Amino acid sequence: MSKRVVFKPYDLTVEVPEGENLLRIAVQAGVHINASCGGEGVCGKCRILLEKGKLDSHRSPLLSDEEWSLGYRQACQSRVLSDVVVRIPPESLLDRRTLTRRRGGIGLRPSPIDLSALRAEGLYNPAFKKRYVELASPTLGDNLNDLARLEQGLARQHAVESLTLDFFLLRKLARVMRQDDFRVTATLDFSRRRYRTPFLLNVEAGNTTQRHFAIAVDIGTTTVWVQLLDLANGAILGQAADYNAQMSYGDDVISRIVFCQKEQGLQKLQRSAVATINQVMHRLLKAHNLSVEEISHITVAGNTTMTHLFYGIDPKYIRLSPYIPTAGSIPLVRALDLGLEVPEHVFIFCVSSVSSYVGGDIVSGVLASGIYKDPKLTLYIDIGTNGEIVIGNQAWLACAACSAGPAFEGGGIKFGMRASAGAIEDVIINPETFEPTLITIDMVKPKGIAGSGLINLLAAMMEADLVSPNGKLREDLDTPRIRLGDSGREYVLVFGSETQSGQDLTISEADIDNLMRAKGAMFAGYLTLLESVGLKLQDLEQVILAGAFGNFINIENSIAIGLLPDLPRDRFQFVGNASLQGASLLAFSRDLLEEERRVANMMTNFELSETPGYMNQYIAALFLPHTQIELFPTVTERLQGVKG
Amino acid sequence: MSKRVVFKPYDLTVEVPEGENLLRIAVQAGVHINASCGGEGVCGKCRILLEKGKLDSHRSPLLSDEEWSLGYRQACQSRVLSDVVVRIPPESLLDRRTLTRRRGGIGLRPSPIDLSALRAEGLYNPAFKKRYVELASPTLGDNLNDLARLEQGLARQHAVESLTLDFFLLRKLARVMRQDDFRVTATLDFSRRRYRTPFLLNVEAGNTTQRHFAIAVDIGTTTVWVQLLDLANGAILGQAADYNAQMSYGDDVISRIVFCQKEQGLQKLQRSAVATINQVMHRLLKAHNLSVEEISHITVAGNTTMTHLFYGIDPKYIRLSPYIPTAGSIPLVRALDLGLEVPEHVFIFCVSSVSSYVGGDIVSGVLASGIYKDPKLTLYIDIGTNGEIVIGNQAWLACAACSAGPAFEGGGIKFGMRASAGAIEDVIINPETFEPTLITIDMVKPKGIAGSGLINLLAAMMEADLVSPNGKLREDLDTPRIRLGDSGREYVLVFGSETQSGQDLTISEADIDNLMRAKGAMFAGYLTLLESVGLKLQDLEQVILAGAFGNFINIENSIAIGLLPDLPRDRFQFVGNASLQGASLLAFSRDLLEEERRVANMMTNFELSETPGYMNQYIAALFLPHTQIELFPTVTERLQGVKG
Repeated sequence: MSKRVVFKPYDLTVEVPEGENLLRIAVQAGVHINASCGGEGVCGKCRILLEKGKLDSHRSPLLSDEEWSLGYRQACQSRVLSDVVVRIPPESLLDRRTLTRRRGGIGLRPSPIDLSALRAEGLYNPAFKKRYVELASPTLGDNLNDLARLEQGLARQHAVESLTLDFFLLRKLARVMRQDDFRVTATLDFSRRRYRTPFLLNVEAGNTTQRHFAIAVDIGTTTVWVQLLDLANGAILGQAADYNAQMSYGDDVISRIVFCQKEQGLQKLQRSAVATINQVMHRLLKAHNLSVEEISHITVAGNTTMTHLFYGIDPKYIRLSPYIPTAGSIPLVRALDLGLEVPEHVFIFCVSSVSSYVGGDIVSGVLASGIYKDPKLTLYIDIGTNGEIVIGNQAWLACAACSAGPAFEGGGIKFGMRASAGAIEDVIINPETFEPTLITIDMVKPKGIAGSGLINLLAAMMEADLVSPNGKLREDLDTPRIRLGDSGREYVLVFGSETQSGQDLTISEADIDNLMRAKGAMFAGYLTLLESVGLKLQDLEQVILAGAFGNFINIENSIAIGLLPDLPRDRFQFVGNASLQGASLLAFSRDLLEEERRVANMMTNFELSETPGYMNQYIAALFLPHTQIELFPTVTERLQGVKG
Repeated sequence: MSKRVVFKPYDLTVEVPEGENLLRIAVQAGVHINASCGGEGVCGKCRILLEKGKLDSHRSPLLSDEEWSLGYRQACQSRVLSDVVVRIPPESLLDRRTLTRRRGGIGLRPSPIDLSALRAEGLYNPAFKKRYVELASPTLGDNLNDLARLEQGLARQHAVESLTLDFFLLRKLARVMRQDDFRVTATLDFSRRRYRTPFLLNVEAGNTTQRHFAIAVDIGTTTVWVQLLDLANGAILGQAADYNAQMSYGDDVISRIVFCQKEQGLQKLQRSAVATINQVMHRLLKAHNLSVEEISHITVAGNTTMTHLFYGIDPKYIRLSPYIPTAGSIPLVRALDLGLEVPEHVFIFCVSSVSSYVGGDIVSGVLASGIYKDPKLTLYIDIGTNGEIVIGNQAWLACAACSAGPAFEGGGIKFGMRASAGAIEDVIINPETFEPTLITIDMVKPKGIAGSGLINLLAAMMEADLVSPNGKLREDLDTPRIRLGDSGREYVLVFGSETQSGQDLTISEADIDNLMRAKGAMFAGYLTLLESVGLKLQDLEQVILAGAFGNFINIENSIAIGLLPDLPRDRFQFVGNASLQGASLLAFSRDLLEEERRVANMMTNFELSETPGYMNQYIAALFLPHTQIELFPTVTERLQGVKG
């Protein structure tokens, strides 16, 4: 249930979920409280006065008895339990101008898979189905072989006319059929992509039709996500994740491809991915008290390099011009053959990729988000080391990968870091004092800046007029926070007294330059795609942000720095881990499964480096927000509002 | 080239192949020479006088200088080099009556696969074909993935529109395609039974279309045969065989099924069969200087139990009433998964079986002999422990297995043995002296009696009137060769002085009884099948004898004892190892491959024990040749001829 928070003296009202942290609310509402300890509660700067309502506040020694009884609380130590009115004390007050900011974030949550919508569309129809049959026991006068008896039963009782199957199943067929006196449940794969007839996947004794499970996996370069699916009842039972164990051989796809060229390199990477999936999958199964024997199949999505590595296919030529993957679609594979710890009846279906850098994760996302069947012109964007872009609608799809570089993942940024404890997520900067208010993941002392935090920081610096449109730090400001560091001019975000390492946490002009290149590559990418089909930014009716990173970015700030197009905010939508969702959807829908390759083929790949106009667009985008400021009307307005 | 041999004083002329052994010629022509040492040359009894022409004779000390210069030779030590006239010396002469015998054997050789006939019928069309393509090297403007590039090339250059493949191939695809600058040869499986599209089996660098090989295997209970096939030129390059290593776990299928129930029993038998195939196959490849990498696929035929064991499927219920195999058709299996030492692209196709005791070896034989498309009513018969029978024509096929027992393989017969060195192959008995003339395999001293020898022996005993129609030995004869032995009355075939062991070699009434049961089961089997479809023996237009054993049996004698029907002799035909031939044909003909399951399904299985009339027929057949002597008119004639 949402609660209302009123910030006095601004009379700014925001709706927040019950239990939300008050510092986070303030930062996201643009209310400066000068907190720079990330929310750990040790600086005591984020004091507010509770005037009305109920907060769940932890009391630290930084508040005296008298202050506590007067209603003073530390915002970072308080959670909202009811509608509240809180007052920002004078020492934290600043000019109201900053309140012109409109920020996305709170309340905008990724949409999970909507199974009821799938049902409504008639797409809920798993390719894998269980069929229970009761067969007559054989006699001398009726001595069909076991398989033929089962086929006859399936034909008569379920109109399944002929079958394909795998010989491994024959090794247990006689035993299973006799276990419950020729009453058996057959698991059938009705997807027609490979075989002429339904494929008999498994046979179990008795009636097990109500217990039918599958696994969906998203193999990310960094993180492996696994969902446990209930095919009998059409539900996602749960999900779990862990870092991809390949991380110890390199952070990004390029370093892993390089590692593959070493002796046993490919094998090590293959086994690492499989080990991670095994570990996460079995943890998930255990948490749901399920036996792995009850799993029917596995769907997998991943980028092209991850897919190659998972199957043990050398990705060597993905890295070398002209960037050739071995295959777009990988045939069904027995999971055991790859080392997965599952029964031998389990096969793996992998989402097709389009090219070396537009992989199955993107195709899966396109399937999950439904843009391939949507009449609206849509921009689908997955921000990461290689930002992938898809533009189109039900009639056509164009896609490209932008070599955005690892800036949004913290790479190439001195204090950049992954989104883990101590990473700064959000920042606002007082435009008069240049003091930041910031919040970290897990609200511990700052250690570095997360990717989403970098976008927010850059926008805050623009807003506080600390940085000029060409990415240079202002030289004329009277603040010790701007100084000349080892690698050029820099802004001190947190002084060492409040960081985990004791070292000053800064952002330099070189860091800003890297961020501009990253956002510029993305912007130039989708603008180039649009122009190559004769369209403009304004034609976009929908912008879908995908990827784990996409979940956390602030739309308003992303537009401010020129990463996202300046379009009406209601056209933006988060889909979260769409790659994982797509993998799950394929398990729930035979139609999608059969359409998957068609959708991948529908996606025309553009090599941006080969596309006319791209380099000019890229150079034009190396500005904050852009050299053509008319492309970003609301940003101009916002910055002017701040500057008054 | 054939030569003419005239036996004086009978003026009996026979045509024989050049180089044939003269004792063998005499025995098969029914010319008594009283040789009982099997042909080793140590008894000296088989002396003949060369009157004209040229023999290649080995001279032993048993002939004096004078005898040699007069033209005396030992028949067993002589090979025919030209047309010859030889005279049987008076001491070996006997009544001409015996010459009324007409014997099959010489000159009747199994027909090998006739590839030119296959071509003439338009059936020479291997499902596995190689296709050479020259592809453009990828560029940034043409950066299709490797598989798509190959598919495009196959579509454009060979009109192969879409492909299925196995992911293992993807692991080498990039390397192979670049090995000879995107010139590659694809091996495609065009059989449509399982997949919707051609299956891409392998990819090799360069043009290898002229080198394309396959393996065909017949997994016999006793012997494993392997043929090496040249698919590029449509030729059988060679064959090799060895005993099935499963022999050490039991002689027949029943004992092996029993062994399977022991700990690791199934695994041991599975590995034994595979080890034998590996050994024979690699020996054959080495002899032809071929790399196993050049093999595209393997076709296998075997009886139902052998098939189950080869795939590691427990044959338990084959042995237990109501005798249920797990499956009739086994899906394609990667050969590596079974332990065969071949590249991972090699799959195994196994001929379908009909029932627990009418297996893939019989279906394969039916395919090889072509009876499924022949308008003539045909009896196909494979004599062994389980004699299998097929009756029918292009419109219908009925089949059954007869529990003939192992008598024809030497089982249950005191001196029965396998067809190896020292086994008596052929016998004639002097109806006056009851002295036998006999020949052994490899012409060494006798050790026992081969299955084919048992048939010949029994017929010879009938002809010499040593045994009465009920299988009892005559009691009124004045010969030391008929006596009361440990297990009842017996005939001494060879006295210990001329056997390998020094022990007398005999055949007892109990042995004869077993032989009568075996031949009676077979005869009752096909007569019952015929009658169940309203036909008579005389309606049979063709009798095909299959199996390794079938190659050696003497038709005339088999009819004499009532094993084979008394039909005009030109209706009989040997096909040799038809199971192996069928396996090879499947590699040469996609049409046959696609028809294989239809043919198996066309074969209606009769459980003889459940078929009305069978038991009566069986009992009626426990007679020499049969209780209804009118069924065997030429036998009556022959025996009367002898008795004069």
